Amino acid sequence: MMGGNDQQAYDRGTSLFSPDGRIYQVEYAREAVSRGAPSVGIRTAEGVVFVAMSRASSTLMEAESIEKLHKLDDHLGTASAGHVADARQLIDLARRQSQGNRLRYGEPVGVETLTKFVTDHIQENTQRGGTRPYGAALLIGGIDNGEPRLFAADPSGTPNEWKATVIGGGRQEIQGHLEEEWTDDLSLAAGIELGLAALAAHEDEFEPDDVAVATITEEDGYRTVPGDEVAESFEAAGIGDDEDADADDDE
Amino acid sequence: MMGGNDQQAYDRGTSLFSPDGRIYQVEYAREAVSRGAPSVGIRTAEGVVFVAMSRASSTLMEAESIEKLHKLDDHLGTASAGHVADARQLIDLARRQSQGNRLRYGEPVGVETLTKFVTDHIQENTQRGGTRPYGAALLIGGIDNGEPRLFAADPSGTPNEWKATVIGGGRQEIQGHLEEEWTDDLSLAAGIELGLAALAAHEDEFEPDDVAVATITEEDGYRTVPGDEVAESFEAAGIGDDEDADADDDE
Amino acid sequence: MMGGNDQQAYDRGTSLFSPDGRIYQVEYAREAVSRGAPSVGIRTAEGVVFVAMSRASSTLMEAESIEKLHKLDDHLGTASAGHVADARQLIDLARRQSQGNRLRYGEPVGVETLTKFVTDHIQENTQRGGTRPYGAALLIGGIDNGEPRLFAADPSGTPNEWKATVIGGGRQEIQGHLEEEWTDDLSLAAGIELGLAALAAHEDEFEPDDVAVATITEEDGYRTVPGDEVAESFEAAGIGDDEDADADDDE
Amino acid sequence: MMGGNDQQAYDRGTSLFSPDGRIYQVEYAREAVSRGAPSVGIRTAEGVVFVAMSRASSTLMEAESIEKLHKLDDHLGTASAGHVADARQLIDLARRQSQGNRLRYGEPVGVETLTKFVTDHIQENTQRGGTRPYGAALLIGGIDNGEPRLFAADPSGTPNEWKATVIGGGRQEIQGHLEEEWTDDLSLAAGIELGLAALAAHEDEFEPDDVAVATITEEDGYRTVPGDEVAESFEAAGIGDDEDADADDDE
Amino acid sequence: MMGGNDQQAYDRGTSLFSPDGRIYQVEYAREAVSRGAPSVGIRTAEGVVFVAMSRASSTLMEAESIEKLHKLDDHLGTASAGHVADARQLIDLARRQSQGNRLRYGEPVGVETLTKFVTDHIQENTQRGGTRPYGAALLIGGIDNGEPRLFAADPSGTPNEWKATVIGGGRQEIQGHLEEEWTDDLSLAAGIELGLAALAAHEDEFEPDDVAVATITEEDGYRTVPGDEVAESFEAAGIGDDEDADADDDE
Amino acid sequence: MMGGNDQQAYDRGTSLFSPDGRIYQVEYAREAVSRGAPSVGIRTAEGVVFVAMSRASSTLMEAESIEKLHKLDDHLGTASAGHVADARQLIDLARRQSQGNRLRYGEPVGVETLTKFVTDHIQENTQRGGTRPYGAALLIGGIDNGEPRLFAADPSGTPNEWKATVIGGGRQEIQGHLEEEWTDDLSLAAGIELGLAALAAHEDEFEPDDVAVATITEEDGYRTVPGDEVAESFEAAGIGDDEDADADDDE
Amino acid sequence: MMGGNDQQAYDRGTSLFSPDGRIYQVEYAREAVSRGAPSVGIRTAEGVVFVAMSRASSTLMEAESIEKLHKLDDHLGTASAGHVADARQLIDLARRQSQGNRLRYGEPVGVETLTKFVTDHIQENTQRGGTRPYGAALLIGGIDNGEPRLFAADPSGTPNEWKATVIGGGRQEIQGHLEEEWTDDLSLAAGIELGLAALAAHEDEFEPDDVAVATITEEDGYRTVPGDEVAESFEAAGIGDDEDADADDDE
Repeated sequence: MMGGNDQQAYDRGTSLFSPDGRIYQVEYAREAVSRGAPSVGIRTAEGVVFVAMSRASSTLMEAESIEKLHKLDDHLGTASAGHVADARQLIDLARRQSQGNRLRYGEPVGVETLTKFVTDHIQENTQRGGTRPYGAALLIGGIDNGEPRLFAADPSGTPNEWKATVIGGGRQEIQGHLEEEWTDDLSLAAGIELGLAALAAHEDEFEPDDVAVATITEEDGYRTVPGDEVAESFEAAGIGDDEDADADDDE
Repeated sequence: MMGGNDQQAYDRGTSLFSPDGRIYQVEYAREAVSRGAPSVGIRTAEGVVFVAMSRASSTLMEAESIEKLHKLDDHLGTASAGHVADARQLIDLARRQSQGNRLRYGEPVGVETLTKFVTDHIQENTQRGGTRPYGAALLIGGIDNGEPRLFAADPSGTPNEWKATVIGGGRQEIQGHLEEEWTDDLSLAAGIELGLAALAAHEDEFEPDDVAVATITEEDGYRTVPGDEVAESFEAAGIGDDEDADADDDE
Repeated sequence: MMGGNDQQAYDRGTSLFSPDGRIYQVEYAREAVSRGAPSVGIRTAEGVVFVAMSRASSTLMEAESIEKLHKLDDHLGTASAGHVADARQLIDLARRQSQGNRLRYGEPVGVETLTKFVTDHIQENTQRGGTRPYGAALLIGGIDNGEPRLFAADPSGTPNEWKATVIGGGRQEIQGHLEEEWTDDLSLAAGIELGLAALAAHEDEFEPDDVAVATITEEDGYRTVPGDEVAESFEAAGIGDDEDADADDDE
Repeated sequence: MMGGNDQQAYDRGTSLFSPDGRIYQVEYAREAVSRGAPSVGIRTAEGVVFVAMSRASSTLMEAESIEKLHKLDDHLGTASAGHVADARQLIDLARRQSQGNRLRYGEPVGVETLTKFVTDHIQENTQRGGTRPYGAALLIGGIDNGEPRLFAADPSGTPNEWKATVIGGGRQEIQGHLEEEWTDDLSLAAGIELGLAALAAHEDEFEPDDVAVATITEEDGYRTVPGDEVAESFEAAGIGDDEDADADDDE
Repeated sequence: MMGGNDQQAYDRGTSLFSPDGRIYQVEYAREAVSRGAPSVGIRTAEGVVFVAMSRASSTLMEAESIEKLHKLDDHLGTASAGHVADARQLIDLARRQSQGNRLRYGEPVGVETLTKFVTDHIQENTQRGGTRPYGAALLIGGIDNGEPRLFAADPSGTPNEWKATVIGGGRQEIQGHLEEEWTDDLSLAAGIELGLAALAAHEDEFEPDDVAVATITEEDGYRTVPGDEVAESFEAAGIGDDEDADADDDE
Repeated sequence: MMGGNDQQAYDRGTSLFSPDGRIYQVEYAREAVSRGAPSVGIRTAEGVVFVAMSRASSTLMEAESIEKLHKLDDHLGTASAGHVADARQLIDLARRQSQGNRLRYGEPVGVETLTKFVTDHIQENTQRGGTRPYGAALLIGGIDNGEPRLFAADPSGTPNEWKATVIGGGRQEIQGHLEEEWTDDLSLAAGIELGLAALAAHEDEFEPDDVAVATITEEDGYRTVPGDEVAESFEAAGIGDDEDADADDDE
Repeated sequence: MMGGNDQQAYDRGTSLFSPDGRIYQVEYAREAVSRGAPSVGIRTAEGVVFVAMSRASSTLMEAESIEKLHKLDDHLGTASAGHVADARQLIDLARRQSQGNRLRYGEPVGVETLTKFVTDHIQENTQRGGTRPYGAALLIGGIDNGEPRLFAADPSGTPNEWKATVIGGGRQEIQGHLEEEWTDDLSLAAGIELGLAALAAHEDEFEPDDVAVATITEEDGYRTVPGDEVAESFEAAGIGDDEDADADDDE
């Protein structure tokens, strides 16, 4: 993408600035994230919703094994996008930190605290030599003192808090859809439907089996939404209709 | 394969991203796997089946020494493909971890747990400097609480669970054959025949002596299928017939 | 920017001099800072004022999470500009040092002492191999023995004390505005207005929500100025008027 | 040999993959082995036979000092080919491991176990940075529980078991001769003759003094065959006859 | 400056010789020093005088924060030139060593001893890998057993003792002026005037506020000369007169 | 010498193979040895003889300080050729090992054992990164259980036992002379004469003062042959005659 | 100097051989020595004489601070040439070793022992990576058991003993003069005169103040010859006469 011959000098070393003040390896790692399937996170009045596209590349692959959504603690979860093996390392890091916090202090780690722990680690991989950045991004969501919170961690190691966002491919269309449709009084069910609709803004056709959905609420904690409920939300969101497909034809 | 001049800048350093977000060394390691002979793994109703092409390069080489299939524990085994010396390191790692688990906890390691332990190690070799990725892939199969499970670990360090899959050369034809023929009610014998037939979809001619077969079941644990039984399955699968060879002529 | 072919030899290695005695990686890191939104620091007779442009890239991003201003101790704070993840590391360093000083000596660290601790760390990253410079700058302000003091730390690791200054983009116009308008008898309120007006000298249009303001005074310590007060100062400073926009048209 | 311009990018770093999945440094190390004189290993019904070409480059060099065959334990020996100083390191490693096993467990190390210990070490030198692969190959032979066994270790670190094989130069002709003539009921004497004849398939003219021969049997353990016995076998094998030389003229 | 294409090979590695026996990184570091404002040191009969050009780049920068002159001990001080952040590291090193000496031995470190401690450290950065040379030079002056002494430390790590010298930009004119005008019976006041006049030989126009002056004498130890006294010396030296400016026109 | 453009890729890294299986740095180190003056070693029936060319480059240099021959133990010595400073390191290594052996075991180290200790160290410098090979070769000779033995250690780290050999420049002519004239019943005196004559086969004119001679015998141990005895042998060998010079003219 | 394009490949890495067996970094370091002013060492019947050219680059530089001659122990001294900061490190090393020897053993270190200690350290910097060679040479002289001895240590780490020699610039003319004029019965005074005359063979005009002279004798130990004595020797040697200058015109 960024093209040109002069950048070659800068992108060979892991952690060097280019003359215009960019760190190409970090931008290329962001590109690795955009090559992945999208994962949406939505903060609703009732809790956090994760909706991740996780379509298997073969009918013989176990869909669950694609693993885009993970529980980290009772009221804490994460969604990933990008280079799968890299994402797994970050998720493991987050999980070990969550468990360690519970063991040491007898209470769950805060959503923001955990996010910043992870992004500190990501940043270090963009500055020190002998390693490449992580080609993965995470959404980290949970309930802090009764309040749902949602953060994103990108390959530069920047943490940001969101009402709703997406990581992975199709970011422009999906984030656009979220910005148009998100309201702060969404029910959890409406959040799931919004997540599915947002994915549909980018992806022409997909089945309920192609997505994984999880919710985190005060009452139920981290909950993987079963396939039949996803199918119902799917229908409620009206995805798969011709209109939707037509809309995408214009892209 | 991936061609072009610009990629030279990225594939020299072990663990750098290219502008389009790829890690070439990992893709080249995948290429090393495709240069190897294929190993098929199939989950049947009765257990896991491994069928590996392991033809000796000389009539004086001991066929067993090619070693594509290995027992890791009573109900746990692995099949490999790719750079042989690299595969051996991963197999040793898996075996040491299996034995260590049994020693520490008095019980076998879970199939998924073991796979992720191995893929974590593989991933680290794609990110830290001073080393190259492993040019090998593994299938890891076994019985967990009575259920047969089958995972694959690729050179990027991504673990995936499969109903049936193949690692190594000829992936397109073999996986295609598996997708068409696999059903979830396969008997163990049918699984072996399916594995042989899948290999035949890629390889024009081969003898029973050219393959190694192993099964893992609740009752019998890891079992190397002896040559005469393989020959019977061979016949049952109808491999070596003219029809098969003709079909391959179209490739 | 600095253009030319010959510099390629020097900017690949992190910490080498060019024939004209420059360290390009440091200059590129400065460029990374100029790519960021500006943060203004002003020393007034009553205390230190920070005014930072922190406009969210999406309406769904939580504005607070952009985090340009941070409290370090009761009477000590910092404002950042540049590569966000890098800035976070420096802020953490400053915070840990502030807290450590309080724990060890029971009293707050001096503003100058803290600044020099941070710049020593920054400098080391410009001289030793295996790392790149920090692509971020900090303003550090506070009350030392009743006196307001304001320092800036740039990517070369040079600490300087200022009456009023800016880090980040638009430095020429904003510093120019500060030099013309700053007087040593500014009230805190006048300082906030000056900060907003200085930002307006560079940025055509922005809303009260697009800036973060904090003050540090003997009486109130570090205080985040709430949105409604910012809006009042905004109005008092007369920003958003047509005249201002016109003035910027000439750029 | 492998020619072409593009490979330059890959063979500079010790342990990188080329786009087609090869590790050039390993292939070049194999080339270093082919530059060496050949060493043949043959498993007979009575034991293992090593026949190594070891012609001194000067009449004043002590032939024994060329050292291609080494005793490792009572019933364990090795033959080497390739870069002499590298081979010596591997032989020392094998010898130390053999002696260590005997000291620790009071019994000889298994032929296969020892081979794999050596190949693990060889493989590590093909993957980690800061070193080159070993430019040498080994044959390791011995008696395990009364059974003669013969393994080869190549520069990639792959262990293989053989009935009869050759390492070093002239592999194509020598291995071809072995494949044609080897039978599983060879006497030890016939094995020595076969080894000499196999070398003769590659080398037009050589004297009994130009080869070193050793045997490993249950009764006699590792035994260096004295020059006069070699000369007898030489005659028995009919080497040096015109017919042989003629056959080689066709090469 | 040193121009040419061939030098590229040598100036990339920190610490290599060029074919003509030069270490380019050291010469480039010297260039970094010449890019800085000049600092003059003068040994007078009464003590050592430092006169440093330290003009702030903005009217809002606190002049003291430019910090070219530093007290190291009661009768010991230093003046710097060049890359500011680098100079600060050397000054800290000198200060810690001075303080450490006092703590350990209860007496001040010798001027020569301290200088050589600093230059040893500088030299090491020109020989070992993984770091660049310091882009700064120091003057170190003080009273040793009642005698004023003045040393300079350059980026190669060479210590030299001087009657009067300059580090930083404009060296040729300033040192020339010193060589013409210095006598060994200068009073302290005359030394200050000579320092100001020497700077004026290079710099057309500057104000008393643009320079920092310090003296070290047996009676008063290290003393920062206050602005009003500097202004008096300024007048006494007759700087700012038309004649001076004219003289410089000829350059 | 070895010429060509393609080799550049391989000879920059210390320890890489070229496509034809060579390690250029080792071959260049051998070239460094050939640039040195020759040292001859001869095993006679009575003991080992060393004859080394050691002509001083200036009449003011102390001839002994050129030091080509060294005593290592009572019955053990060494002769060197090549890069002098490198040779000194190897000689020190050999001497420390000899002395250590005597201290630990109360007896002299074996000639072969010592040689292999040295060559192991040499080999390591050809395989691990971060160092270059040694540009020196050694002859190591001594009396083992009454038997004279002579070994050579080259820059690849290969040890070989010799009846008579030469290291350093003019190898072809000198070794040729030795091969023609050496017999296994040489007296010590005849050995010295042979050594001188062999050197004369390469070097047109040289004086007794230009060579150093040492012998190692059971009775006398290591003995530096004094100048007058060398002169006698010189005469006995008939060196300096016109015939000899003529013979060399043909080269 | 050594010119040519091909050498670029070899002189970038510190410690690699070129195809013709040279180590360019060592040769470039020798070039750094020739760029320095010459230092002469002469062994006389009464002791060792050092005569070093040490002309200050400015009239304001303290001549003593150029420091070419240093006392190491009562009867031991050194003269240096080349890169000043590098020479200082070697001199410090020599001094610490001399003092350490005295502390540990209660007696002075031998001249030869000390020289070899220093050259071992120099050699290591030519072989291991991560550092460059020393760009300096030393003469080390002293009285060993009543005998004057003189050694030189060059940048390759080779120690040589001399009757009289020179390090630094103008080696050809100065060593030539020494070879012509040196005799073994020189008095100390004659030695000083010879040293001055030898320098004059290279340098057209110089004053007594431009040289430093030291002597080491059994009775007086290391003694810096005062300026007035140098001036007398100067006169006695007849330097500065027209004849001398004329002789140099021919160069």
